[in-house]
Amino acid sequence: MKKHYEDIGFAKVDHHRPRRKGFPETIYCAEKTPAQVAKIAQTIWARGHNVLATRADRKAFLAVKKVLKKAHYHETARIITALNPKTTRDPRPVTRDISIITAGTADLPVAEEAAVTAEFLGLKVERLFDVGVAGIHRLVNNLDKLKKARVVIVIAGMEGALPSVLGGLIDKPIIAVPTSVGYGASFKGLSALLTMLNSCAPGIAVVNIDNGFGAAVMAYSILKQIKRSGL
Amino acid sequence: MKKHYEDIGFAKVDHHRPRRKGFPETIYCAEKTPAQVAKIAQTIWARGHNVLATRADRKAFLAVKKVLKKAHYHETARIITALNPKTTRDPRPVTRDISIITAGTADLPVAEEAAVTAEFLGLKVERLFDVGVAGIHRLVNNLDKLKKARVVIVIAGMEGALPSVLGGLIDKPIIAVPTSVGYGASFKGLSALLTMLNSCAPGIAVVNIDNGFGAAVMAYSILKQIKRSGL
Amino acid sequence: MKKHYEDIGFAKVDHHRPRRKGFPETIYCAEKTPAQVAKIAQTIWARGHNVLATRADRKAFLAVKKVLKKAHYHETARIITALNPKTTRDPRPVTRDISIITAGTADLPVAEEAAVTAEFLGLKVERLFDVGVAGIHRLVNNLDKLKKARVVIVIAGMEGALPSVLGGLIDKPIIAVPTSVGYGASFKGLSALLTMLNSCAPGIAVVNIDNGFGAAVMAYSILKQIKRSGL
Amino acid sequence: MKKHYEDIGFAKVDHHRPRRKGFPETIYCAEKTPAQVAKIAQTIWARGHNVLATRADRKAFLAVKKVLKKAHYHETARIITALNPKTTRDPRPVTRDISIITAGTADLPVAEEAAVTAEFLGLKVERLFDVGVAGIHRLVNNLDKLKKARVVIVIAGMEGALPSVLGGLIDKPIIAVPTSVGYGASFKGLSALLTMLNSCAPGIAVVNIDNGFGAAVMAYSILKQIKRSGL
Amino acid sequence: MKKHYEDIGFAKVDHHRPRRKGFPETIYCAEKTPAQVAKIAQTIWARGHNVLATRADRKAFLAVKKVLKKAHYHETARIITALNPKTTRDPRPVTRDISIITAGTADLPVAEEAAVTAEFLGLKVERLFDVGVAGIHRLVNNLDKLKKARVVIVIAGMEGALPSVLGGLIDKPIIAVPTSVGYGASFKGLSALLTMLNSCAPGIAVVNIDNGFGAAVMAYSILKQIKRSGL
Amino acid sequence: MKKHYEDIGFAKVDHHRPRRKGFPETIYCAEKTPAQVAKIAQTIWARGHNVLATRADRKAFLAVKKVLKKAHYHETARIITALNPKTTRDPRPVTRDISIITAGTADLPVAEEAAVTAEFLGLKVERLFDVGVAGIHRLVNNLDKLKKARVVIVIAGMEGALPSVLGGLIDKPIIAVPTSVGYGASFKGLSALLTMLNSCAPGIAVVNIDNGFGAAVMAYSILKQIKRSGL
Amino acid sequence: MKKHYEDIGFAKVDHHRPRRKGFPETIYCAEKTPAQVAKIAQTIWARGHNVLATRADRKAFLAVKKVLKKAHYHETARIITALNPKTTRDPRPVTRDISIITAGTADLPVAEEAAVTAEFLGLKVERLFDVGVAGIHRLVNNLDKLKKARVVIVIAGMEGALPSVLGGLIDKPIIAVPTSVGYGASFKGLSALLTMLNSCAPGIAVVNIDNGFGAAVMAYSILKQIKRSGL
Amino acid sequence: MKKHYEDIGFAKVDHHRPRRKGFPETIYCAEKTPAQVAKIAQTIWARGHNVLATRADRKAFLAVKKVLKKAHYHETARIITALNPKTTRDPRPVTRDISIITAGTADLPVAEEAAVTAEFLGLKVERLFDVGVAGIHRLVNNLDKLKKARVVIVIAGMEGALPSVLGGLIDKPIIAVPTSVGYGASFKGLSALLTMLNSCAPGIAVVNIDNGFGAAVMAYSILKQIKRSGL
Repeated sequence: MKKHYEDIGFAKVDHHRPRRKGFPETIYCAEKTPAQVAKIAQTIWARGHNVLATRADRKAFLAVKKVLKKAHYHETARIITALNPKTTRDPRPVTRDISIITAGTADLPVAEEAAVTAEFLGLKVERLFDVGVAGIHRLVNNLDKLKKARVVIVIAGMEGALPSVLGGLIDKPIIAVPTSVGYGASFKGLSALLTMLNSCAPGIAVVNIDNGFGAAVMAYSILKQIKRSGL
Repeated sequence: MKKHYEDIGFAKVDHHRPRRKGFPETIYCAEKTPAQVAKIAQTIWARGHNVLATRADRKAFLAVKKVLKKAHYHETARIITALNPKTTRDPRPVTRDISIITAGTADLPVAEEAAVTAEFLGLKVERLFDVGVAGIHRLVNNLDKLKKARVVIVIAGMEGALPSVLGGLIDKPIIAVPTSVGYGASFKGLSALLTMLNSCAPGIAVVNIDNGFGAAVMAYSILKQIKRSGL
Repeated sequence: MKKHYEDIGFAKVDHHRPRRKGFPETIYCAEKTPAQVAKIAQTIWARGHNVLATRADRKAFLAVKKVLKKAHYHETARIITALNPKTTRDPRPVTRDISIITAGTADLPVAEEAAVTAEFLGLKVERLFDVGVAGIHRLVNNLDKLKKARVVIVIAGMEGALPSVLGGLIDKPIIAVPTSVGYGASFKGLSALLTMLNSCAPGIAVVNIDNGFGAAVMAYSILKQIKRSGL
Repeated sequence: MKKHYEDIGFAKVDHHRPRRKGFPETIYCAEKTPAQVAKIAQTIWARGHNVLATRADRKAFLAVKKVLKKAHYHETARIITALNPKTTRDPRPVTRDISIITAGTADLPVAEEAAVTAEFLGLKVERLFDVGVAGIHRLVNNLDKLKKARVVIVIAGMEGALPSVLGGLIDKPIIAVPTSVGYGASFKGLSALLTMLNSCAPGIAVVNIDNGFGAAVMAYSILKQIKRSGL
Repeated sequence: MKKHYEDIGFAKVDHHRPRRKGFPETIYCAEKTPAQVAKIAQTIWARGHNVLATRADRKAFLAVKKVLKKAHYHETARIITALNPKTTRDPRPVTRDISIITAGTADLPVAEEAAVTAEFLGLKVERLFDVGVAGIHRLVNNLDKLKKARVVIVIAGMEGALPSVLGGLIDKPIIAVPTSVGYGASFKGLSALLTMLNSCAPGIAVVNIDNGFGAAVMAYSILKQIKRSGL
Repeated sequence: MKKHYEDIGFAKVDHHRPRRKGFPETIYCAEKTPAQVAKIAQTIWARGHNVLATRADRKAFLAVKKVLKKAHYHETARIITALNPKTTRDPRPVTRDISIITAGTADLPVAEEAAVTAEFLGLKVERLFDVGVAGIHRLVNNLDKLKKARVVIVIAGMEGALPSVLGGLIDKPIIAVPTSVGYGASFKGLSALLTMLNSCAPGIAVVNIDNGFGAAVMAYSILKQIKRSGL
Repeated sequence: MKKHYEDIGFAKVDHHRPRRKGFPETIYCAEKTPAQVAKIAQTIWARGHNVLATRADRKAFLAVKKVLKKAHYHETARIITALNPKTTRDPRPVTRDISIITAGTADLPVAEEAAVTAEFLGLKVERLFDVGVAGIHRLVNNLDKLKKARVVIVIAGMEGALPSVLGGLIDKPIIAVPTSVGYGASFKGLSALLTMLNSCAPGIAVVNIDNGFGAAVMAYSILKQIKRSGL
Repeated sequence: MKKHYEDIGFAKVDHHRPRRKGFPETIYCAEKTPAQVAKIAQTIWARGHNVLATRADRKAFLAVKKVLKKAHYHETARIITALNPKTTRDPRPVTRDISIITAGTADLPVAEEAAVTAEFLGLKVERLFDVGVAGIHRLVNNLDKLKKARVVIVIAGMEGALPSVLGGLIDKPIIAVPTSVGYGASFKGLSALLTMLNSCAPGIAVVNIDNGFGAAVMAYSILKQIKRSGL
């Protein structure tokens, strides 16, 4: 019997996760050495799973590339992916539309982290960038697109007002992602985070500052419920 | 043509909301006078909508009761509801299961706010209270129930660790609600809020401290996507 | 020669202020005894000035009423005013339009503090309440009124997004007033305050949480510049 | 018919802004790549508008310079401007005096950001630097100059007391800009920000920490009201 | 040999303090029961020392009055004193001038706590109230009085700018006391505290929010140095 | 087979805890109704366990007293205990000395919460109150007593310096409990908490603000290790 | 007679510490120059003690290596050790098992700081890394190992939920170490710190963020109590 | 008549300060360019005053050295001084003893900033470093020295407990300086700052984090009072 996790000393790789969560363990690179990232990636791959590594810099990518020829680096998203030909069912494909919208251009890295993660999880993604509330006609003009999506991920820094406004206009589940974009009293994303948590428009839930990955997984877990319904 | 909102001086009641959001405007009573609450309730009712008023104390209820005989007070949830016989389609019924779980007994008022709101919105709710991480077998013994739900609302104060643990065990969308239960360094819910935002288990999104209402509406907006799929 | 201030022991009443600021010293009652408030009011009145006292409860009003028969209590605004027939030029009348708008009904006390102060200072005020971003058509439908104003005071609690949205739509100077309306992560107005400070729409400046008085005086000082131009 | 915004992928440039706000969209460079800044600048220019880009480092300037020969770099202000000969009416010239004063020498970059922005918007600016409260005679000696201005922008870090003191002396609208100048318990501008928000002298409104640009636009929007009055 | 402290169960009264600090142990009543306050007061008195109890409400006073007939209640200062005829040398009399100034009337309780404590310690106190920066001529007109003092205690809430301004005008040691007077972003005295800590005028040191007692003892310890010099 | 927990609707009482933790589930009363507290107490008692309920006010006690005649109220500690004659082994008696010391008299309620809990758990407790650093001879004179204890619980509010000083003098494990005693910049215990976490003397660990209960259980878990060693 | 400390100008090396605390003074390198570290190390060594220096970078190590040939650098732990052959009794050997567990791989540096310190103090350490709550089976599978330890050090960043979960499962004293691992609303370890302080599972005490050293010394001081009991 | 200040564009040098404060304007270099520092230094020197520049790096020193040959750089203190032979009376010499003590070696830069400033102002300084509370005998052994000083400056980071302990032992005025030394929950000096503000030992006042300069000037202003008494 295969063990549920594999102990490689500095890490215990969770091979049981696809069964519990529908997709394999992913790697958060930010405070790991390139060698650690590469070793974990290799361990996941060896079990026949796809690999997703977030917050990866180029050094981490090069270390992974050495051991996994199929590794690909998404620069803006700071993500490494490697799709394993042995995998047929993991991540379980869930073909549904989500929209990812940003308030500004500076929110792009977070948006791409969400988009690349969502695509890795089998979702179809529409990107709609720079539609912040300072020029609200840009948002209103795109409402039809947003209404076609099942879930909308809204990404904003500074005052983070976009989810509130959108929440008043559509009835889709909105996953709000505050970003650390801003200066002064934005306090590295705290301002946008509080704004989103206090939204007077209901139907909004929030993930951590700059957490594009988490927003995409939340969207995936929502869409899987539809999938299971046989749609 | 009916106007989209009705101006009653101190408020502009949004009669267009059912069309945009699928359910009528609700009343947040916390900083309104009983007279204001009653007047807004009456205005909503007059248009043929159901009434939901949150954070209502007994005084607000009595004021509403005078003008709406059908008003009912949910004491633990601090909610007033009044179901309008004229309403057939609003809130649009979405019959799906959600689970609402709490870490402790002290989280009950928030849990009931979520449960009563969800039931008002047509959802079928299973309550599972006091399954916090200090005795994790209580959670594990109930996993099967949770796996049957489409969405799980997890409510916890103090250290707020329950969503993280549950997020590692199931693949449902989890809406985490931090509560202000606790003392000292819980800083009125800040500790639980930060815990939930930083969860290492993905598939979790967070609403404001004590915001049972918001969690229920988020769950409703998710389940409506399934509904539309014709399930 | 009249002295520039009058020493009454616990206070030094600044009789020179009308000359420097265009209106007499006002009384902030919140942490003064009713007797102190009444004594200061009397001292200002005796010099022939009008009296404005903010954050006044009913006890303070009754104390003032005993010594100034003309005192009037504005309950929602928590303001005492007494208009002195001897005053012809103070506050200098500046007849211009300002609009005071609120995001919700719960923001009324702050809005009335601003409105009563502005009227005391000779401004013509239009009130527009409960036009928050959760139902943005209520705002858009009233844009014409706002465009007629010289200055717009925008009052909002919770996530405080209204000034940002309005700032993208009109070119008037916007004075944003965060309120302590909200719960949980609103942290008694901190959330709305940060939102307003970080607004991505320029042409907005912010006063202290719940400071309707300060917003009105800022509007007055702006309008006085127009006045001086001989308009 | 010209479209109201132009979609260049990572940004949606708002060409309708001059009509709504009186001046074209400006570029906040801080978290954009030089290539993105240059592309947005070019798009604005191509429509016949002037270009203003704030928080620009030399790299961003060089990228803009390549595509816009007329680009000019204001080093202390960290601003790029490019004046478009095709523009006759945008920004609408508003020739009025404003004073920009700083508490210390270290506040210069913020002051210059305000000054260059104001000049770009057609305002006449008087600079008065290093008149902080530690040597208040420097302020008092310059009161006459300040009294001639229509609006005064006051810039201060550390304890940020200058707007309060000035607010007691003159009746002009004061726009207070806290700066991140200081150390220890200045908490990167938080101390000055709180000071300014709590000012006991009315007639003061505050913008974000280090937000010289926002202060200038607020001043411009005030002065435009006078302009419209035909002055 | 007399023991250096006396154990009364819930407290260990420090009878050695007069020798080390020049004055007897004082009682901070805020979180003690009236019975505890009375018992400690009695213990100090029995050793022949004077009694000073701060943050005392009327209940605490009545309990002390029962056991010490000479107890006197200073209402505004919330202080109980009882002067012991047996005491000749404790507190050691230090007759020098200090000035206690406040920015506003609402700062009086803190000012009186400082003044009564200072007088208990043998200092000669001049009170100068309500000379805040919003009307700076009130301060300037009293500079001569302040220049005669050896130490100046400056008490201010809200933005707390008074010590900075005074620090630029005189060369006396300034002890700054922030008060919790204010609202909104004053955060119960945090704003004034940060202002005073960041003062750009040197020669200022700060004590805890509302700590009039501590400021008086600091002043006393400074004046004792002069005394020892034989002045 | 007995079930591991008992579901009473609003709570799931954890009957397995004695086996896992060595003592039965305890009741945190602060945010429960008296009826809920009484019901849980009864459920624990019915299984033959002892009852401990913390943060109990007199109302909760009266409700418990009605259903458990043996209930006893420790007023200062705000604790209800009920010792069950059926219990022989739970909590497992661990007879060892601990010392509980406080910096001041105002820390007594927290100290008694720790002491009563520890005694309930079978520990022998020595109380030593009011030995704070302002009169350090009181501490030094009692060092011998502290050296006899196996574990020292140190309780302090305000600046919370006592654990650091003691940590430099003895080699016992020190459990530090910050209290909310203080005012102004103590921020309800935050100051003492930070002090204790940053202690330069090692051998100190910290529990939540005012958490006397938690400190006692930590001490108990340490002493149980000695017990198991057969001492 | 040997003096109790040695004054080397910038430091006073505490040679009495082994007698008071059971182990020699250790060196916190973070804000000392390499020359200062080397000089203190040499002074400790010269008295015949072992040397432990924490938060040491390679530069500090090279400086120490020059004066102490036996110095050894533990890279991941950032610790320098030098074992002195003259030392027989210091640190007093205490041979007992402790377990050090981490939630993730990124927590390794803190875990190694704890482990190397504990080994230096004579403890036997079992390392168990990457058993965080996102895959709780990894923890449950290792419970037997943890139950054999006398003390468990639990190290976690992000939401820091691991100590709470473990505290519900075992009855060992748990020393919780929050780490600065995380991003956004982890606020450099604040989130994990608050989680651990608010744990609903008793028997947990907390040390400073990233303070592996302090956790090890706390464990050592606990185990010494067992040692003294003659076990 | 000499003007009271000199306008050099980016600064207004306050030549009147020696008369008001007893010593010339000093230069805070942290956010000024080397050229600005040099120009201000030259302006002060040209009036015949001594020069003191704090927070100066080597670049600033080299710029000053070019224009003032007598400039001297105090590396640890990060201070530039230049003593002007033309100055006889400024700063007014005040020959009295102060002690500067630190809790640890890492506090040296702040201590030297205080010491060099104090010496520049004519004070006689005794340095006593590394006497923190973890080894309190080092403090107690030096009490006699401290008792000879008129004023004691106490400098400490981390938990910052030293002033409290010392405040219980001596009756001198204590100026407490929190430093940013520490990690984790020290929050860059906030922990030490709060500790010092909440000290239970009276006779302590606090300056900003790392503000050695401010402490020295406060000491100087105290000692000048003695001087004036003719001692």
